[in-house]
Amino acid sequence: MCPPALIPYKPKNPKTRLSSLLSDEERERFAAAMLDDVKAAVKDAMCSPVLVCTELFDSEDVQVTITDADLNGSLNAILPQSVGPTLIIMADLPLADAASIRRVIQTDKDVALVPGRGGGTNVIFLKDPAKFHVDYYGASFLKHKKIAEEAGVSVDVIDSFRLHTDIDEPWDLVELLIHGTGKSRAYLEELGFSISADQGRVGVGRKR
Amino acid sequence: MCPPALIPYKPKNPKTRLSSLLSDEERERFAAAMLDDVKAAVKDAMCSPVLVCTELFDSEDVQVTITDADLNGSLNAILPQSVGPTLIIMADLPLADAASIRRVIQTDKDVALVPGRGGGTNVIFLKDPAKFHVDYYGASFLKHKKIAEEAGVSVDVIDSFRLHTDIDEPWDLVELLIHGTGKSRAYLEELGFSISADQGRVGVGRKR
Repeated sequence: MCPPALIPYKPKNPKTRLSSLLSDEERERFAAAMLDDVKAAVKDAMCSPVLVCTELFDSEDVQVTITDADLNGSLNAILPQSVGPTLIIMADLPLADAASIRRVIQTDKDVALVPGRGGGTNVIFLKDPAKFHVDYYGASFLKHKKIAEEAGVSVDVIDSFRLHTDIDEPWDLVELLIHGTGKSRAYLEELGFSISADQGRVGVGRKR
Repeated sequence: MCPPALIPYKPKNPKTRLSSLLSDEERERFAAAMLDDVKAAVKDAMCSPVLVCTELFDSEDVQVTITDADLNGSLNAILPQSVGPTLIIMADLPLADAASIRRVIQTDKDVALVPGRGGGTNVIFLKDPAKFHVDYYGASFLKHKKIAEEAGVSVDVIDSFRLHTDIDEPWDLVELLIHGTGKSRAYLEELGFSISADQGRVGVGRKR
């Protein structure tokens, strides 16, 4: 099984909540490094990455679909035309690895969901994509569970902190510096970031 | 296999970082409800809970060990005397369930670790407890990995958001209200807490 893995991606002005730590250019390069980590994990799990972008974006190694709709609109235009099992995975999950993605795509249910921090949905796996539509933003995890129930399809919730950990806020960088192994962690280290650990809470610092 | 599950527990003045949302008495009852959820999950996974308390604490249904040392001191006094596989699990993991704990205790390595948010360690499973000592606080996950390496024992890292999600800060309550199924979630709802979900980030609110 080599299902397509749709990866929504915003190349311009990404990750604005990291603006206090990273310049505009650094945010773009960091988002691209996280995307590379997600693509690598997806390929290791034998899925075929397909970027879903709202802007023109050159990618040598993977298929790119350009759309002028928002996240929900784009995916909800693609899903009804999709045949066979389809994965949707966010681009800001640099801790994703083949093992965690395999646990998702090997579900024995019709739909598998991986919740993100704060009620979001980080990964969706659909055996029959035409029976589902997405509704991101807000407590999307609860919305997606309900959409599946209303469609009469069975739902699995995959218990993974690697896929649960989306990188949005400055304190999320701690997770990447501790558990990351790919390009985005290397890029943070190149920029001078490291964890600052005393006996209390662990923070993140940057040498300039 | 019915390994003991050591659960360090502080009955007095727990969870001080929730003081902005909960009164002293509410924090004590909330911590006790989370402990009940952890005990239930541990029992469902066929482990035998043993509370490790620094204060006298009555518990009808489980064994209690009273110690006057701190967290590290207490556990490091117990481990050398422990024979056979032993689990150490924190009391503030109300999303713990039997499936996630089973994944920990079924490891084929000598030691299994589950990282907590921000570099902490939420669960440790030791096949030979006498070969290990704990060093909590700060980036304890990295310290525990190193302790295992220095002891020459193999380490597994279990990928679970249910065991990764320790409840410390106000925003952690969102996770419990979305994914919890036990007494601590019910207690929060009894107190009037619910998630407030608009199209942006999900928060938590309280009706008084």
